[in-house]
Amino acid sequence: MVTYTPALMTDMYEYTMLDATLQDGTAQRNCVFEIYTRHLPQGRRYGVVAGTGRILEALEQFHLSDEELRFLSDRHIVSKETIAWLENFSFKGSIRGYREGEMFFPNSPILQVEGSFGECTLLETLLLSILNYDSAVASAAARMVSAAKNRPCMDMGGRRTNEWAAVAASRAAVIGGFKGTANLLAAQLYDLPAIGTAAHSFTLVHDNETDAFHSQIKALGKGTTLLVDTYNVEEAVRTAVEVAGPELGGVRIDSGDLAAMAQRVRNQLDALGATNTTITVTNDLDEYALAALQTAPVDSYGVGTMLVTGSGAPTCAMVYKLTERENGDGVLQPVAKKSKDKASVPGRKLAYRSFEYNLADTEHVVSGSEEKLAAFDAPEDWKNLLVDYVDHGTIDSSYQGHDAIMNAQKHCATSLAQLPITAQSLMRGDPAIPTEITVL
Amino acid sequence: MVTYTPALMTDMYEYTMLDATLQDGTAQRNCVFEIYTRHLPQGRRYGVVAGTGRILEALEQFHLSDEELRFLSDRHIVSKETIAWLENFSFKGSIRGYREGEMFFPNSPILQVEGSFGECTLLETLLLSILNYDSAVASAAARMVSAAKNRPCMDMGGRRTNEWAAVAASRAAVIGGFKGTANLLAAQLYDLPAIGTAAHSFTLVHDNETDAFHSQIKALGKGTTLLVDTYNVEEAVRTAVEVAGPELGGVRIDSGDLAAMAQRVRNQLDALGATNTTITVTNDLDEYALAALQTAPVDSYGVGTMLVTGSGAPTCAMVYKLTERENGDGVLQPVAKKSKDKASVPGRKLAYRSFEYNLADTEHVVSGSEEKLAAFDAPEDWKNLLVDYVDHGTIDSSYQGHDAIMNAQKHCATSLAQLPITAQSLMRGDPAIPTEITVL
Repeated sequence: MVTYTPALMTDMYEYTMLDATLQDGTAQRNCVFEIYTRHLPQGRRYGVVAGTGRILEALEQFHLSDEELRFLSDRHIVSKETIAWLENFSFKGSIRGYREGEMFFPNSPILQVEGSFGECTLLETLLLSILNYDSAVASAAARMVSAAKNRPCMDMGGRRTNEWAAVAASRAAVIGGFKGTANLLAAQLYDLPAIGTAAHSFTLVHDNETDAFHSQIKALGKGTTLLVDTYNVEEAVRTAVEVAGPELGGVRIDSGDLAAMAQRVRNQLDALGATNTTITVTNDLDEYALAALQTAPVDSYGVGTMLVTGSGAPTCAMVYKLTERENGDGVLQPVAKKSKDKASVPGRKLAYRSFEYNLADTEHVVSGSEEKLAAFDAPEDWKNLLVDYVDHGTIDSSYQGHDAIMNAQKHCATSLAQLPITAQSLMRGDPAIPTEITVL
Repeated sequence: MVTYTPALMTDMYEYTMLDATLQDGTAQRNCVFEIYTRHLPQGRRYGVVAGTGRILEALEQFHLSDEELRFLSDRHIVSKETIAWLENFSFKGSIRGYREGEMFFPNSPILQVEGSFGECTLLETLLLSILNYDSAVASAAARMVSAAKNRPCMDMGGRRTNEWAAVAASRAAVIGGFKGTANLLAAQLYDLPAIGTAAHSFTLVHDNETDAFHSQIKALGKGTTLLVDTYNVEEAVRTAVEVAGPELGGVRIDSGDLAAMAQRVRNQLDALGATNTTITVTNDLDEYALAALQTAPVDSYGVGTMLVTGSGAPTCAMVYKLTERENGDGVLQPVAKKSKDKASVPGRKLAYRSFEYNLADTEHVVSGSEEKLAAFDAPEDWKNLLVDYVDHGTIDSSYQGHDAIMNAQKHCATSLAQLPITAQSLMRGDPAIPTEITVL
């Protein structure tokens, strides 16, 4: 058994900045940090937010163990005074942000973290890691689900990414619209539907295919899905129906020209009377391959590599930037770096989406002081995109767990359907709607 | 605190296959599984093995907890008999494979797992997850280290990948030749050098840059590295040397044209007498950017996104295939699937590398029965590439921990230097040496 807290899932500079600011007093300054991306992956029309529920899980665990404190002390990363400050650390600030499953666009505040500089700075890497990876997978998943039309997509990608990333990917895939996952730890942690067929090794370990199919059906029933491309597909399909009868649940094809092969297998199954036996295909599928298979007689898809690697965009380029902070007189002031090509918009922000004829139209980001934003009167038909996740350290638990994931899945489908139809185009292009920034 | 075992970091079918084969008796058959890749990422000349040490860590933890057994039972994933079999599970087989840091090429057996079908099948996803991700990062890291010539590269990528993947990435980066990591958990778990400067938010939270620099130097000493591109680089460099004096350790530039900016900053530092102050650059660097910076006066590099996402190849496409198994009479037989375009070479394998004029020449994969391989007399100048990691359940601990990582780093450098010089070309091309497969 291994035990851990997420408190060291950070870059060292977060602790050294904490240490320096505790010494000079600025660690206590109230701050607003915002997470956003400067651009979507090249040619993408939208992104899908995922990971926020996992951030809330991580925050609940974000207390430093004695061993972790000893490490910080032994390595002289922080001073004795800072160790004392960290001993009872828990985040007491507030977090708002986009809902999981929400569409996002460049320069809109996916997450807004408010608290003292010291506590907010410790979260930088952890929050970014979670949002950058989970959103990359959810974004790819949503594109795949669109391309697959109404056919279910299943996550089989765990083996092609880090073993923990695999768990996050399963969760994010479901938010993007996937119907199940092969990953058991994800199924356990989030009560997700677990799916699976068999590997080629299962057929190979038996003396012949007939023995393998008999064994699988004995253990899992006739509703199971048999893998038919270990030797010869035509023979395997014949054997499968001989062994299971026409009640056979399904067959899986994992190689060759999937469209042509699916058609031949469908014809053969129908000729054998197995008209209800479904066909699952797998083998390096991505959204383009799924689109190309729309007219092939396929019932469901198993997607691996391209799902868990974000289909060419394995991260979202989200950044965590200080946008407002107290000055020496206790007055909140908007701030921003002015680095070449990477300047940010100062000030805390609100985010809305406006709609025309029920279709999303513009992402409105409104920036200004706390007072100005409080007084801002958004047009009635603008939808507020920010929800409260954490209120002065108290975590809203309704955004965690299985139900939150299923709500996010529904929200993703609804939100995507409200974008202009070009959003679902697989052709490269601009974001589906523009982001307009207003500074009050 | 969260506790876990890696036992559910698997696809469901591994447990259902175990269940079916326990029922029909084939779970006890002796088997050899091999991990290999069918191809390197497009245009890459070599891959670097990483992750094997983490596999050994995971194997030590691979025992099912009561909660995990209950999950498998409640979900009806396996039968009661299989639950009983799993209660005291630990892997009792043997594992051989390439050393960490070794170069790899298509179709060579990176890892060879021998044991009963039941125990070997449970490891499939976990082993692949670890090797696929860690090797992707180590491969990218080695290319970056080559391109950086003798300038140190530092891992700052944690925020751009899953929070656990970040830890694995730091470890793999060091195997590929990186000199340190910003990630504290990796630094703690593997006793790696932790590095860091400061974020723009640190400058911004202070009333002005002078205050920020004073604070950082007070906390971390004059040897620290100050971030100089929050507002105006020229002013920041002047302020930095005013505050720290010419003993200032270093400055970091994170935006703009890095080559031009580094030259201007170098000139300015030298003019201010800070001739020993180093320059670190960061900002979406990859191996091509590093190569382009070779003549710029830069002292070290911080690499993020492109490191942890494998610089365009976030996974290695490694697969886990059954190559030999006992038949019903207890005789070991070579096996292989014949799927279209994905056929494998049957039989367990040996792997060697031959050299001509001290340069690697050919990767030799020799396949055959246990007896034939035992009798195989390799030419004297062939280097055996397979080492023993696990012997009938006993793990060789010399391949785990800090020292093993540093050995792997050395091995990677040596092994890469022995490849033909074209291996270090960043131009797309074929694998640096061919793989020759001999079936005895």
